[in-house]
Amino acid sequence: MSQRIKIKALLESKETDREVTVKGWVRTFRNNQFIALNDGSTNSNLQVVVDFENTDAALLKRLTTGAAISVVGQLVASLGKGQTVEVKAKEIEILGDCDPEKYPLQPKKHSLEFLREIAHLRFRTNTFGAIFRVRNTLAFAVHQFFQERGFIYLHTPIITASDAEGAGETFHVTNFDLANPPKADNGEVDFKQDFFGRATNLTVSGQLEGELGAMALSDIYTFGPTFRAENSNTTRHLAEFWMIEPEMAFYDLVDNMDLAEALLKYVIGYTLDKNKEDLEFLTQRLTEEEKQKPQQERSEMTLLEKLQFCLENDFQRLTYTEAIDILKESTPNKKKKFQYPIEGWGTDLQSEHERYLVEKHFKKPVILTDYPKAIKAFYMRQNEPDAKGHETVRAMDILFPGIGEIVGGSQREERLEKLEQRMDEMGIPKEELWWYLDTRRFGACPHAGFGLGFERLVLFVTGMGNIRDVIPFPRFPKNAEF
Amino acid sequence: MSQRIKIKALLESKETDREVTVKGWVRTFRNNQFIALNDGSTNSNLQVVVDFENTDAALLKRLTTGAAISVVGQLVASLGKGQTVEVKAKEIEILGDCDPEKYPLQPKKHSLEFLREIAHLRFRTNTFGAIFRVRNTLAFAVHQFFQERGFIYLHTPIITASDAEGAGETFHVTNFDLANPPKADNGEVDFKQDFFGRATNLTVSGQLEGELGAMALSDIYTFGPTFRAENSNTTRHLAEFWMIEPEMAFYDLVDNMDLAEALLKYVIGYTLDKNKEDLEFLTQRLTEEEKQKPQQERSEMTLLEKLQFCLENDFQRLTYTEAIDILKESTPNKKKKFQYPIEGWGTDLQSEHERYLVEKHFKKPVILTDYPKAIKAFYMRQNEPDAKGHETVRAMDILFPGIGEIVGGSQREERLEKLEQRMDEMGIPKEELWWYLDTRRFGACPHAGFGLGFERLVLFVTGMGNIRDVIPFPRFPKNAEF
Repeated sequence: MSQRIKIKALLESKETDREVTVKGWVRTFRNNQFIALNDGSTNSNLQVVVDFENTDAALLKRLTTGAAISVVGQLVASLGKGQTVEVKAKEIEILGDCDPEKYPLQPKKHSLEFLREIAHLRFRTNTFGAIFRVRNTLAFAVHQFFQERGFIYLHTPIITASDAEGAGETFHVTNFDLANPPKADNGEVDFKQDFFGRATNLTVSGQLEGELGAMALSDIYTFGPTFRAENSNTTRHLAEFWMIEPEMAFYDLVDNMDLAEALLKYVIGYTLDKNKEDLEFLTQRLTEEEKQKPQQERSEMTLLEKLQFCLENDFQRLTYTEAIDILKESTPNKKKKFQYPIEGWGTDLQSEHERYLVEKHFKKPVILTDYPKAIKAFYMRQNEPDAKGHETVRAMDILFPGIGEIVGGSQREERLEKLEQRMDEMGIPKEELWWYLDTRRFGACPHAGFGLGFERLVLFVTGMGNIRDVIPFPRFPKNAEF
Repeated sequence: MSQRIKIKALLESKETDREVTVKGWVRTFRNNQFIALNDGSTNSNLQVVVDFENTDAALLKRLTTGAAISVVGQLVASLGKGQTVEVKAKEIEILGDCDPEKYPLQPKKHSLEFLREIAHLRFRTNTFGAIFRVRNTLAFAVHQFFQERGFIYLHTPIITASDAEGAGETFHVTNFDLANPPKADNGEVDFKQDFFGRATNLTVSGQLEGELGAMALSDIYTFGPTFRAENSNTTRHLAEFWMIEPEMAFYDLVDNMDLAEALLKYVIGYTLDKNKEDLEFLTQRLTEEEKQKPQQERSEMTLLEKLQFCLENDFQRLTYTEAIDILKESTPNKKKKFQYPIEGWGTDLQSEHERYLVEKHFKKPVILTDYPKAIKAFYMRQNEPDAKGHETVRAMDILFPGIGEIVGGSQREERLEKLEQRMDEMGIPKEELWWYLDTRRFGACPHAGFGLGFERLVLFVTGMGNIRDVIPFPRFPKNAEF
């Protein structure tokens, strides 16, 4: 018997009139004659034509949606619409039955909410097949981008001993019996007896450790899971998500922005090229979904157009201070349409402000820089106060249409004194971060980096609306199923 | 000023007599004249020649080991040994000083134990620079291998609700106040109030979720962190380590072995090609280290020879039963040299037995298959009992010289009844794994997969002796520093 060929390769093959073996799952079986077979290698199904007159009726009955089958047959040019080849079956073997009475996935449209409940099966739908193929390509493109530029992929630790960055609520990691954790003489939990001999938690970012690598290897990046124990039940937040965090020695903020913009364009371009069919499918899906919305809420561009637009246009770069000026003078602010009116300099921007800048004012991705020092992390490089005495840091956030912040980064404060002073002001324990401060003691240099939330990127590229739909098994408050 | 060029590119460049800018860290500065400059892009240092007669004495003093500098100068052909080009400095800027009185890394040989204490700085040594560049290449090669074959990279969850696989002790994940976890009426910890509404822990394997992906996408792989809360203080175990776990629909055990062998050969070959210089350095390091050992404990092959050998030879495949026969008849067994003598069929093999097979008997990597059912996991496909009534499963372990088990895998039990029966026998709660069992209810098919411990692979390829030296920041009992 000939070796199994995947459907993607088979549909691209020009060489017909040969015997092939295909394996996959039945999507539909119509007229007792046409099997639409899918093996996940592509969104397209292969049409398998069954010679029903010469096929056992018992076998025909078992060709139900979801059944796993193996087919040996002749690959021939197809006369049907939407396909160039099909397989005339010679032998069909049922590998695994699928009882249509019990199988939750039927050949009809299921809601995304329902499919989230059966995340173990949703890979078998067109939408989720496309999403996870696109996600795969984006992940590989990230690696390829950095490898082409000589970056070193660094696995920073997942279990850490401090939440010194203050990036958010952390999950505790312990091997104590939670019913009865050992107490020290003072009545407090005795973490000396815990697995690591101290209190530990799940990382919120690999940045600080990433900087350690950059201070020797020049350019590194992480790509790993990060965690937030925040009770956010939104379409934009997960308790467990993947981040990409490059750190580059000898980079300033402009180099940093250039790299981030190049990365986003590279991975989007790579995916447009590799997953054309999946993105066409997802574009159509989004267009249909938007038809349910009132006219003014629909996007002006299709998904494919939006992706193309990102590739072809420079991201708009401006400072926080410039953005505040634009927002203050904006129509929604003057007409009091913002929930949080822009009054003065210094407050953080809300999602409505970011969306106004990106979607209404500039109509393209925006990079905001030089945020107020008071609203940013301790490790960001401090600017000299401006003429008005405003204190800012060399931060940058990249804002994307429909997504908001997709990248957050900064040039890092490499001056030991400034860094220590800021840590003191913000109450960050220096003794816990002795190793981080060592990089400023021994051969410090200007450097910069950023974090890219991988699921937000996948959300943007797939045009999906809920972040729970772009990671295989989402983790969020009260949910750790599968 | 010309743009910075990385040292790797510069040393490979043929185009001399031009002005260049280089940035990096001083490794040594000798005779007030020769800076050995390293930027982590390669193991080799760039020689920067200082015109000391025309350079400020105060600046010369600051050219200490570890200092970060920027140099503008002329790239010229070098007359010195071991380098083809060097840079005649025109301008040197100190970016970050490094006080030689305080800097822990001096230009001398430090022990690996000492460097483990300062893991935040060890990237700056030749040995660890080479290790982490090799690790990077291996990681990328893994992705490339699977991408070339149409596999989908799947991010399986890190936080999970069950340790149903029974692969080992797990870490608890919680956002309870550990001093005072809420109790239910029955006095037990009330996990309903925990973040996820149930008890959760860190994953020990992504396999079960990986199978869910394979049952729709055909071929998937994971590459992520996994965890064991085991009190193992050995040179082979970590509490946090990275695993690669492919799962393939329509694969049997032979396909599985073929894939695993191809993967190992591919990534080793890729790294031999990409990191020649690093591997030459590590080979020399190992040879020197082995000179400290008695003759009979030294390897017969150098590191490079060992890697080449793995590429060029088929791995030896045999069943557990055949291995037992060989071991029973072996000289060390007959001479009672094994700590655990081989008496009969059915017991697990110890490291000494595996090493005998790999290093003495076959003298090459070995794949053992068809282990006793009693010592393997519930999800492995059950063989028919053999003539002697021995019950085995379609497992396979790949054993490597010096490392032992580097891959463990199996064909999976796709027959629902057999699987459920085995779960019952082993006390594995079926209701917790309802989603896993669903794949056997709906369109099941023969499939297989394996797990490759990434750090063990890095250990083998770098020739290092302690797994704590091949991951940036190792996690082990009583240690979560950095």
